[in-house]
Amino acid sequence: MGMNIPEVSLPRIVIIGGGFAGLSLARTLSGNRFQVVLIDKHNYHTFQPLLYQVATAGLEPDAIAFPIRKIFKKHNNFFFRMAQVKSVDPEKNTINSSIGNLTYDHLIIATGSKTNYFGIEGMQEQSMAMKTIPEALNLRSLILQNFEKALLTADLAKQRSLMSFVIIGAGPTGVELAGALGELKTHVLAKDYPDLDLRKMQIHLIEAAPRVLSPMDPESSAKADKYLKDLDVNIWLDTAVKDVQGNKVFTNKDKVFVTDNIIWTAGVVGAAIDGLDEALTRPNRIEVNEFNQVKGHSNIYAIGDVAQVNSPATPKGHPMLAQVAIQQGKLLAKNITNQTQGKPMKPFKYNDLGSMATIGRNRAVVELPKFKFQGLFAWYVWMFVHLVSLVGFRNRVIVLINWIWNYINYDRGIRLIIRPFTKKPVSSNIEIESESM
Amino acid sequence: MGMNIPEVSLPRIVIIGGGFAGLSLARTLSGNRFQVVLIDKHNYHTFQPLLYQVATAGLEPDAIAFPIRKIFKKHNNFFFRMAQVKSVDPEKNTINSSIGNLTYDHLIIATGSKTNYFGIEGMQEQSMAMKTIPEALNLRSLILQNFEKALLTADLAKQRSLMSFVIIGAGPTGVELAGALGELKTHVLAKDYPDLDLRKMQIHLIEAAPRVLSPMDPESSAKADKYLKDLDVNIWLDTAVKDVQGNKVFTNKDKVFVTDNIIWTAGVVGAAIDGLDEALTRPNRIEVNEFNQVKGHSNIYAIGDVAQVNSPATPKGHPMLAQVAIQQGKLLAKNITNQTQGKPMKPFKYNDLGSMATIGRNRAVVELPKFKFQGLFAWYVWMFVHLVSLVGFRNRVIVLINWIWNYINYDRGIRLIIRPFTKKPVSSNIEIESESM
Repeated sequence: MGMNIPEVSLPRIVIIGGGFAGLSLARTLSGNRFQVVLIDKHNYHTFQPLLYQVATAGLEPDAIAFPIRKIFKKHNNFFFRMAQVKSVDPEKNTINSSIGNLTYDHLIIATGSKTNYFGIEGMQEQSMAMKTIPEALNLRSLILQNFEKALLTADLAKQRSLMSFVIIGAGPTGVELAGALGELKTHVLAKDYPDLDLRKMQIHLIEAAPRVLSPMDPESSAKADKYLKDLDVNIWLDTAVKDVQGNKVFTNKDKVFVTDNIIWTAGVVGAAIDGLDEALTRPNRIEVNEFNQVKGHSNIYAIGDVAQVNSPATPKGHPMLAQVAIQQGKLLAKNITNQTQGKPMKPFKYNDLGSMATIGRNRAVVELPKFKFQGLFAWYVWMFVHLVSLVGFRNRVIVLINWIWNYINYDRGIRLIIRPFTKKPVSSNIEIESESM
Repeated sequence: MGMNIPEVSLPRIVIIGGGFAGLSLARTLSGNRFQVVLIDKHNYHTFQPLLYQVATAGLEPDAIAFPIRKIFKKHNNFFFRMAQVKSVDPEKNTINSSIGNLTYDHLIIATGSKTNYFGIEGMQEQSMAMKTIPEALNLRSLILQNFEKALLTADLAKQRSLMSFVIIGAGPTGVELAGALGELKTHVLAKDYPDLDLRKMQIHLIEAAPRVLSPMDPESSAKADKYLKDLDVNIWLDTAVKDVQGNKVFTNKDKVFVTDNIIWTAGVVGAAIDGLDEALTRPNRIEVNEFNQVKGHSNIYAIGDVAQVNSPATPKGHPMLAQVAIQQGKLLAKNITNQTQGKPMKPFKYNDLGSMATIGRNRAVVELPKFKFQGLFAWYVWMFVHLVSLVGFRNRVIVLINWIWNYINYDRGIRLIIRPFTKKPVSSNIEIESESM
């Protein structure tokens, strides 16, 4: 079995990863100048910023996933292959994947990031991550299964553990998930489970930094903190998780958290592939120059979360954000075209468009380059930006309709345990992923 | 662990199965007269008639599944438990389930039907069934995975096998699925896979009877036959499957079908539970009288697919249809109420409202008690009837929007391999199911 890509006279560009970075690159490249091969473990692009809504029964996967083949339907000389890339051999200009080898003229590594457990033993097995659609669906099932179980037990400590949630990491993902769980508690689960005392449903958000949303402005953090507390979320700042044993989470404080629902959103590392060891940085990212060229190679590039641009201005590289990935992808398309035409390449400069997070209905915090604001208007901005950022008109329509429905009815209609979650190594634990936002 | 249902002074009615029969019964019963306990393996009701659209990437599960707890949110004295019921002990008025035992005053078995492989060895392992949402999702993944694989092989026989489909059984499910695959081929897969020669995608529909849709009028069968052939479906009548070996399907004819996509829609049997052996009939249904009382028991009833009403007019029982299930459920609610009030019960009489099937866009066959018609108007009727039959306004809106989108754009937007299908015993192979239509 081989990858079965036809040999043509055009230079072959191989892109590993169909996340924000890989997609924006592939869409900008012209099929008349290059043969483009895009490889991803999934046959769809995932809009990760809304994964938490899949996990909390607000959206189905089709709202935030988009078939990659559909995006490139009208592109010439474009080939998609569903595969896992294991390594690259820069000397032979070849990649090695689960479906065979392939040579390249230009290679772009856009493999994104993967969950980082900071070496806490047992955490990966005991906790749920939320980086992929299968993971989000697993979390949806787990929440509902544990409520079904809570109905059956006469052991009050066990019941409390089944109904409690511990979210580790108060970045945008953790904050938005905590808010969504707060709403689920009040508006949905209280009605679905009238036999259960919903006061037992404790939502804990644990953060090692001294405030939530620590990369944002303190004013945004303070507002987000207030919004979360309004939704009955317990916030534990300056609290670092040290250990997990069964359903117990131990921290640097005295408090021990007992829960059957541990959700880990505390960190990511790059999802670098093998074969470029000399360019590997400590958080498993790949060091690149300002043209996103991998250290020591003129025809291998890394973009998005996995890339660490080494410059005096960015000693730790750029933040792992969708905007960085998209901008790097677009620029690289131009730079490769320029390079093959003998024109000079343009160095990457990150244009920070701002950041935002939503915490329940009518509430969000938004930071634009020149303004920051919170509350209802911020919430409208959050919704608008996310809607227009989705790939495809169909997905926008489906998301909008679900949002309107959920808003009017205080509902989350997709509380379906389609495939019960069972703790064991699942195929969703993968290395190649799209970028986080 | 027990089922943890409070003991109250009201008579307890236990309903096993949340399909069309169990649901219509539970919704009609008054919570002021009874304590109602509904048990199902899933926490949602499945609208089985549209499962084939989930399998062919036209709808997500949330369009055709409805959370059972949401249906009964405002019902008094109603309890739902997610469990698998194993057996009943009529002497002790107790059922035994995966989450413990429960006593009942009245027991209703509404466990539906399960796939019948007629003892063909290996068929269950080699073929895909389509009775549940996980099964439909597995089929969606398999179709797309096999197309991805077909791209990679240089072995033309293997490629042909990966791209070929054999549907066994030309009842409504088989016919509608074959039509949907025909449309998928022309409108979607041909565009998604420009490297593949789509003429290799052969769709075979195998039927042991001399015509498709054999329970319907010959005129409907003839039209359905023509519609299917217009969509390039190969129809093999009077053809009985005898054996399956790997990717080869052997029949009573010389023709051997080679395919990696075997779909079995050729038959169902009742999904009776243990403990009522003296009432068991040959197709694993439970014999009941005209009040749906199980032979030999005045407080145990069976309704829907699993029930076989024994009367001179129905020597083989009623057909396994949603309409029968719904009507039996509604009548039984009244009869149990009457019974507890000392009033006479009313015998069940099936009011046949007709039957229908759709074959691709703009085409359907419809038989009403006094009319039969085919074509565009029949298609409108088919859509209308299915839309209004769905549980819940949200599901109707989501289905309608998807249908409009798919119709205008000749699209099936949900071609996502969310969980790759792997052949092994899966949790979706379950005994308790809702009724087929």
